[in-house]
Amino acid sequence: MRKIVTAGEILVEIMAAEIDQSFMTPGPLIGPFPSGAPAIFIDQAGRLGQPAAIISSVGADDFGRLNILRLQESGVDTSAIAIHEGAATGSAFVRYGRDGDRNFVFNIQNSACGLIRLDPAARALIATADHFHVTGSSLFSERVIDIVKSGIDAVKARGGTVSFDPNIRKEILDTPGMREALDFVLARADIFLPSGDELFLFAQALDEAGAAAEILARGVAAVVVKKGAAGAVCYEARGAVDAPAFPVEEVDPTGAGDCFSAGFVSFWLRGEGIERALRLANACGALAVTKKGPMAGTPTLVEVETFMESRA
Amino acid sequence: MRKIVTAGEILVEIMAAEIDQSFMTPGPLIGPFPSGAPAIFIDQAGRLGQPAAIISSVGADDFGRLNILRLQESGVDTSAIAIHEGAATGSAFVRYGRDGDRNFVFNIQNSACGLIRLDPAARALIATADHFHVTGSSLFSERVIDIVKSGIDAVKARGGTVSFDPNIRKEILDTPGMREALDFVLARADIFLPSGDELFLFAQALDEAGAAAEILARGVAAVVVKKGAAGAVCYEARGAVDAPAFPVEEVDPTGAGDCFSAGFVSFWLRGEGIERALRLANACGALAVTKKGPMAGTPTLVEVETFMESRA
Repeated sequence: MRKIVTAGEILVEIMAAEIDQSFMTPGPLIGPFPSGAPAIFIDQAGRLGQPAAIISSVGADDFGRLNILRLQESGVDTSAIAIHEGAATGSAFVRYGRDGDRNFVFNIQNSACGLIRLDPAARALIATADHFHVTGSSLFSERVIDIVKSGIDAVKARGGTVSFDPNIRKEILDTPGMREALDFVLARADIFLPSGDELFLFAQALDEAGAAAEILARGVAAVVVKKGAAGAVCYEARGAVDAPAFPVEEVDPTGAGDCFSAGFVSFWLRGEGIERALRLANACGALAVTKKGPMAGTPTLVEVETFMESRA
Repeated sequence: MRKIVTAGEILVEIMAAEIDQSFMTPGPLIGPFPSGAPAIFIDQAGRLGQPAAIISSVGADDFGRLNILRLQESGVDTSAIAIHEGAATGSAFVRYGRDGDRNFVFNIQNSACGLIRLDPAARALIATADHFHVTGSSLFSERVIDIVKSGIDAVKARGGTVSFDPNIRKEILDTPGMREALDFVLARADIFLPSGDELFLFAQALDEAGAAAEILARGVAAVVVKKGAAGAVCYEARGAVDAPAFPVEEVDPTGAGDCFSAGFVSFWLRGEGIERALRLANACGALAVTKKGPMAGTPTLVEVETFMESRA
């Protein structure tokens, strides 16, 4: 089994309990939930039985500990998660609007996440990686970008593969170094996993197939467009494969895209056919949204298989 | 009316909703509440009608905004609260044990609080201060210590006064520069407001009267020992005055000591007798604990007077 390594933010997430709740006045909240896009991704990969590890950093507090314990329970190698005395574990407060939109108050850059470094534990981990996964939201500091570049170069040098989930909003594309880092990653990615419109941030064409073709022409082997409840499409040079989503009652969408990506990458690494990898990934995303909490619904391999049989 | 200026941390507080709740697993929380010891102090002073201002720093987020709005509603001058893009407003997560003990997860030093500076707005404010109040918990950075020293020196140079609430735990007395800063403040304080055992961190004697006498001998005019539900005692060179607390049903103790201190200092500055100042301060502390949230119970002058009449 090939080992997936990723790098980036570990956070606790605190959720407003009610729709349209304000963060300007006290109200009911729920948390702390383990979170952070690359952490959710690697948690899902671990639960599917894939050898998996993350390079990250937390504070010496309960919020760091709960994340490390959760990842360990999921089988993730946490040897390269640094624990910093005097730093606070990163956090995200999220509230949901009536139309499903999400608003965040983040503490990432000046949290322990800002102390992520290419330290000896990170180097040791990269030396064992067969696949490197990049989440665009993690490219918030020069140091994470350094780790990502080192990880990609090391994995590529030994014939490994790279996946890239842009997971980014237009507004932060102008962060210094961000655009260049995204281009560096895309130029080396084997699998590209944009959600909806993110595809068009990296292409000139205004239609999905055209934009995917441009990305494929840049050397990416598989462009997987994630569409949530509308399923997913995988574009390869030989053609496109479409897979519908599994209809479920959505409780909490946060993390669904990361779980989908981890599912697709894990099964792709195992040599599953594209159609089956898409369906397994759709099942991961579907189960992820059925529970409150970014990692609360992340299914194990058995849970994914049981769910797919029940929907067969 | 004499103007009180203070400096230090502005935070949001997030509370565990249940007794003995863990921060290692998701659970019900309530928040964000405006908080931070010096912020609670100055909020109470403002609500009592005292000219009041705070030198602080928040992030450009809802958590900073809610604090600024709250302080403005209470009549506090917020002109020296800097708003930093890219920094997160400080936070404190608190949970209560069955025996009333509190456990915190703080984000202060690496939050916007760590960016508090003696900037032009802070200098302008200090130039208008008649009284400077110091909360020991705020001496977490060299820069806040600089502001405190500048504020004290400026106020003292023009014949003003200083109050000092140690508000500190033994564990952090060894923070570099902390002990020296505490000694600097105590040497210049007119009013010293320790809670319970804090008195003994600054004296050799093992009994309260003896320890208070040592502090008075160092030049402090009034040593006010805060004892929560057991009331308060004020030691002066001419003798001690004791005032019982007002019995109330305690909902949330956080902030009661800060409200007491603000009450005592405000009425002392107005020339009230010690006994009456203690009773007014006890009323502030009593009302503060009757509501959930560090500033939720902070009473106005009218509310304090109405409460005292009802208990006469």
